[in-house]
Amino acid sequence: MTSDASAGEWFLPAGFRASGVRAGIKPSGGMDLAVLIAEQNCSAAGTFTTNRIAAAPVHWDRGLVPSSIVRVVVINAGNANAATGKLGMENVRKTAEVAAEKLGCRVDQILVASTGVIGHQLPMEKVESGVAAAIEAASADSLGFRDASLAILTTDTRPKVVSRRWEVGDSGTQVTLLGLAKGAAMIGPRMATMLGFLLTDARVAPEDLQRILGGAVEDSFNCVSVEGHTSTNDTVLILAGGDPSTPTLTGPDLVEFAVMVREACVELARMIPEDGEGATHLITIDVLGAFDREEARTIARSVADSPLVKTAIHGADPNWGRIVSAAGYSGVPFDENELSLWLNGTPLYRDGAPLAFDAGQVSEGLRNNRDTAIRLVLKRGDGTIRFWTCDLTADYIRLNADYTT
Amino acid sequence: MTSDASAGEWFLPAGFRASGVRAGIKPSGGMDLAVLIAEQNCSAAGTFTTNRIAAAPVHWDRGLVPSSIVRVVVINAGNANAATGKLGMENVRKTAEVAAEKLGCRVDQILVASTGVIGHQLPMEKVESGVAAAIEAASADSLGFRDASLAILTTDTRPKVVSRRWEVGDSGTQVTLLGLAKGAAMIGPRMATMLGFLLTDARVAPEDLQRILGGAVEDSFNCVSVEGHTSTNDTVLILAGGDPSTPTLTGPDLVEFAVMVREACVELARMIPEDGEGATHLITIDVLGAFDREEARTIARSVADSPLVKTAIHGADPNWGRIVSAAGYSGVPFDENELSLWLNGTPLYRDGAPLAFDAGQVSEGLRNNRDTAIRLVLKRGDGTIRFWTCDLTADYIRLNADYTT
Repeated sequence: MTSDASAGEWFLPAGFRASGVRAGIKPSGGMDLAVLIAEQNCSAAGTFTTNRIAAAPVHWDRGLVPSSIVRVVVINAGNANAATGKLGMENVRKTAEVAAEKLGCRVDQILVASTGVIGHQLPMEKVESGVAAAIEAASADSLGFRDASLAILTTDTRPKVVSRRWEVGDSGTQVTLLGLAKGAAMIGPRMATMLGFLLTDARVAPEDLQRILGGAVEDSFNCVSVEGHTSTNDTVLILAGGDPSTPTLTGPDLVEFAVMVREACVELARMIPEDGEGATHLITIDVLGAFDREEARTIARSVADSPLVKTAIHGADPNWGRIVSAAGYSGVPFDENELSLWLNGTPLYRDGAPLAFDAGQVSEGLRNNRDTAIRLVLKRGDGTIRFWTCDLTADYIRLNADYTT
Repeated sequence: MTSDASAGEWFLPAGFRASGVRAGIKPSGGMDLAVLIAEQNCSAAGTFTTNRIAAAPVHWDRGLVPSSIVRVVVINAGNANAATGKLGMENVRKTAEVAAEKLGCRVDQILVASTGVIGHQLPMEKVESGVAAAIEAASADSLGFRDASLAILTTDTRPKVVSRRWEVGDSGTQVTLLGLAKGAAMIGPRMATMLGFLLTDARVAPEDLQRILGGAVEDSFNCVSVEGHTSTNDTVLILAGGDPSTPTLTGPDLVEFAVMVREACVELARMIPEDGEGATHLITIDVLGAFDREEARTIARSVADSPLVKTAIHGADPNWGRIVSAAGYSGVPFDENELSLWLNGTPLYRDGAPLAFDAGQVSEGLRNNRDTAIRLVLKRGDGTIRFWTCDLTADYIRLNADYTT
């Protein structure tokens, strides 16, 4: 089941409601406030930005997860509530208080996430009435989740949704996992990136949930980049709200659950550079033969974040020297004689020396395919990674030269 | 004396000749090969890229400096001779052999530098005849140095030259320092960046020269960035060819010389982001109150290399949250409550909280001034740095989406 499916075809987890409303936070007047509501207390886990300027809702959520009592996630777009000082923290608490009062639960059962412009205080009247309206509008059908998937977007051109349904072992019990994400810029892979929300009706202990989410994020949201700018608001949350009368997942069932979470996270994460601001190419970077996984990630990130690599691919220019050069300044102490490069399957550089190739053919391949594959192979060990980014275009410049004003 | 001076107004060091010729390496047919020739053996020092994919001429020069017998620097533009394997190294040696034979000196008296496209072998017939022609054309007057300053350029829109003349102590002896540089992209500040050449008729011991150059480069070429991509070819060389009958500089005279070298390097380095590809703003980033200088540099580099910061300034958008956010993901473990920000003198963020300001006025200031000043102040110590970069524009994308093909 992929994001191409329309809302009516998503598998929806039992026990959750959702909605998206127009609270008036976005100047465009579009939907900008979403709630994800669990009918009962959920296990919840989260991963967050490592940016030192962490948004107020990031501070709030960090203090609450892992948890076994979460009921609601409130998400607003159009304002990041980051770099907002003490008033920003008070506004998160106020948001949680409004939701808690409306639902008859406690403030520490409410998680909050924000995305949008940094450094502006939230318009709290609009947020408060928006939260109340969203809670009233929440529904368990696909339209509620569709609206939520739209209300969390900023410059994204499309919603990002995945779902999975599978049988737990041979129990005959089906469980469902639904994931929503947003992000198209300020995407840098130094921990959980942008906003991602996963809901499941499986029963999972909070500590297992945190461990599984952390592992999945390492291989997914931490392997994507648009321009390398790590956001102040990056947050991935997972809520597991399985029926309390059913057994908590353990052993092979828990492993199967972890695989599903990982797959869903990878699929969601890929959608972000795929929808990167102004992007015309999704670039998949495989690094093989590094000393370890972190070393492979360092090289992949250096290539992914090089404006020269990204503009060359945008221009269908087989200027591969920029790719090996970006690997070369990553900080990984490899020897240039142990590096080889393939671009869209064509070998261009082997063991530190250039190979003859048909530049016209490689250029045509870049021009005619949205998907671009960079493969860098070293001889240092068995560290590998798969990393995703997008190209850099004049549209990205236009979109970002005039975002707040 | 600044770069705005025309060639006739430069101070020229005694004992050097120079030229630039059209060797046919650049497809444009422009001047692309320069020589800098000393009449006698010089002390020479150099600093080089830390990119693991170092160009063949970088490997060559590293093996020769510091030195007390250098006679010539041969520089070609249009081909980087990087990622070219063993054949690339053979071609550097061949270049040095041609120059040595022509001048009647040894190959280990010849330094070589290259800049241009990565991954292509040098067209050696053109290089060899170009070296011979350049040596024949070399002259000690300003036109020879003017041609050299032009022949080393690639996408630069103007030559980059500085000169200084001063009296050594109270000796009545004058010495002169002339500096040439090139660079407009693939500029990342992780050691000596791009190509820079300094010639002086002062007498300086090779070890002193190396130490003085290393210090000057730390505060100049290592404090500039265009897009953060550390080149394979970065090289800064200095040749000191003072009259052997005069005393070698020591003590206060050597300190004065070091100050002049540092000033010349800072002036040259600033010219690079000033002429950054497609740039419309020169951005000066001051970081104060960091724990130490390296921490200040890390923060400055993170801000300088953020495409979101660079596009905001291009768009005259006072979206200052991107600046503090870029500081936040630099990896420096500051507390957000100890960070303050000024943009073109206007305070925007103090001790972790946003300040009220006139956005229209700040935007107008950005729009009407090519120079932009970002000032970030922490409360961690006395580490400071001044760093220079430029904005990111659609012209940069256009220039780099189609460079080799």
